[in-house]
Amino acid sequence: MNTIHVPVRDAYNVFIERGILSKCGALIEDLISGSTCAIITDDNVDKLYADALIASLTEAGLKAVKFVIPHGEASKCNASLMQIYSFLCENDITRADCLIALGGGVVGDLTGFAAATYLRGIHYIQVPTSLLAQVDSSVGGKTAIDLPEGKNLVGAFYQPDAVFCDPDTLRTLPREFLTDGMGEVVKYGMIADAKLFDLLCECDLDTVQEHFDEIIPACVSVKRDVVAEDERDTGLRMILNFGHTIGHAIEAYYHYETYTHGCAVGAGMCLMTKYNGSPEEYERLAACCERYGLPTDVEAPLSQLLPLCGHDKKRLGADIRYITCSPIGTAHIKTAPYHDFCRLFER
Amino acid sequence: MNTIHVPVRDAYNVFIERGILSKCGALIEDLISGSTCAIITDDNVDKLYADALIASLTEAGLKAVKFVIPHGEASKCNASLMQIYSFLCENDITRADCLIALGGGVVGDLTGFAAATYLRGIHYIQVPTSLLAQVDSSVGGKTAIDLPEGKNLVGAFYQPDAVFCDPDTLRTLPREFLTDGMGEVVKYGMIADAKLFDLLCECDLDTVQEHFDEIIPACVSVKRDVVAEDERDTGLRMILNFGHTIGHAIEAYYHYETYTHGCAVGAGMCLMTKYNGSPEEYERLAACCERYGLPTDVEAPLSQLLPLCGHDKKRLGADIRYITCSPIGTAHIKTAPYHDFCRLFER
Repeated sequence: MNTIHVPVRDAYNVFIERGILSKCGALIEDLISGSTCAIITDDNVDKLYADALIASLTEAGLKAVKFVIPHGEASKCNASLMQIYSFLCENDITRADCLIALGGGVVGDLTGFAAATYLRGIHYIQVPTSLLAQVDSSVGGKTAIDLPEGKNLVGAFYQPDAVFCDPDTLRTLPREFLTDGMGEVVKYGMIADAKLFDLLCECDLDTVQEHFDEIIPACVSVKRDVVAEDERDTGLRMILNFGHTIGHAIEAYYHYETYTHGCAVGAGMCLMTKYNGSPEEYERLAACCERYGLPTDVEAPLSQLLPLCGHDKKRLGADIRYITCSPIGTAHIKTAPYHDFCRLFER
Repeated sequence: MNTIHVPVRDAYNVFIERGILSKCGALIEDLISGSTCAIITDDNVDKLYADALIASLTEAGLKAVKFVIPHGEASKCNASLMQIYSFLCENDITRADCLIALGGGVVGDLTGFAAATYLRGIHYIQVPTSLLAQVDSSVGGKTAIDLPEGKNLVGAFYQPDAVFCDPDTLRTLPREFLTDGMGEVVKYGMIADAKLFDLLCECDLDTVQEHFDEIIPACVSVKRDVVAEDERDTGLRMILNFGHTIGHAIEAYYHYETYTHGCAVGAGMCLMTKYNGSPEEYERLAACCERYGLPTDVEAPLSQLLPLCGHDKKRLGADIRYITCSPIGTAHIKTAPYHDFCRLFER
């Protein structure tokens, strides 16, 4: 088993092992003082993995109750949250009990926010089953729901008590979800791990499965280092946004319909590197993205995308902050007034 | 000006001064990096104090926007919260800006929770205008909304950047709100400040106004000491619940209609002391409560109230924790199985 310690204020471990989904009950029993685990999952994941998790919890002497939301981003909303609160009340969940997020990023963000706020905070555990969630969203304590006005506008920084990653769950992922997750995996190589990037340049969507035992810990280690340094997202954590400044603009331009998050980040990284890296760096990144079905550009012209880059409500003040990765494996935080930022793309 | 420093993780100051409401703009301008203050208040307080606050903010060069909720506990709900989020989005409030809670406990709890969760947390300032909020709820970082299933079931521990208490705002309080707040004031004397309790035994609802410059800092100092020791409510903070174990049962028994929170706490303190203190202590407490219109008992029999004492979802496990104050000015945390707890009241 690969165990990665995350030394934030409320420190916790990420456990990575094939088959851990069916064995985590005993580890969870050690972590919590109460007796009940409230599992939140979606209808897709429920069918595949809920029974195995519940069996493991029951075997460890814990009681398990389950609430199933419809899959998809639309569930990351206030209405789902209120349903989860009611479910927790009905089942008399107290601060001694815990929530378990079983699923991808939507389930993780929503469950984490429910845990952060129910009774002013109860224990929760992440059991991510998508690549995106295993390498990125389950670690770091960012929880959120969407508002009608925009994504992730309401949330909390709230760390889980543990994360259990089972790479075997990625075998059942549809290819487009694997591609989606690979966007963030490539990002981790670009911002901090040239060796990981080299490995990614040698695999493709079919062969990468065999290397997940190496790739997932590599990504989680980078994220751990960054969030340990900047838990509240006021500085270094910004480097995790490589590819996201333009990526978010792409998602917004296409109304979150045409490109998944990972694909938008892929195109965002390529566009940023095309204009802010060497031609060789751009070629390597573009070739790597293509191996995983990630786009290297989009039809929408930069003149339409750049104005959307400023629309991050979380920004402090009016300047745009963006990340460049040159040489590959290093990240640089830059700040520029909007018009100077646009000028970068005029070459 | 009386300044009390609260040394929690994100430390802040409580400023207590008559007239500070009209002068706090410059102090707020020093605290925040952005330019906009979003004031949340209720319709009653809006008429009395919003103009003075806005004038002070404007004079300090800040922009002020305002959202008004209906007064009363019913506003401490998810629907109000969603309206506040929309208001903040519409006004492009970013992490550099701040929220200001102008009002009593409902406005403070709701605004604090909005601040804790909008964009995963933005700055907020408490300007409490009720006695209950000035001596108790505005300090300590407990924020919450109610669910249909119960009060304060959703919330966060989230400290304000500053608290501005203007005792002059208490002059306009209807007498029943003054009585309501005095429940908590008497509690602070009982749990930690015998000198404060002596003073309270010499005043009444009419004369107490003259002593607020002394009383409010005394209460805030006690609360400061307790929350500094136990920010997350896992130990010492429990002493703030003196009178609340039975008090909450009284509120629930009467469906939150017959007794205000302060009155329920008054009766709760008296009942607890009658059975867990000396006859002299009980006599002194009861006489003190009567001076402020606080009930010393209720019609509902203890046999009906005690079963409701267990219904605190935040409890850890099944034992009941309760507080006794004997001698006056000291607090003792006790834990007992439910049946042993009931036996205390059989004398």
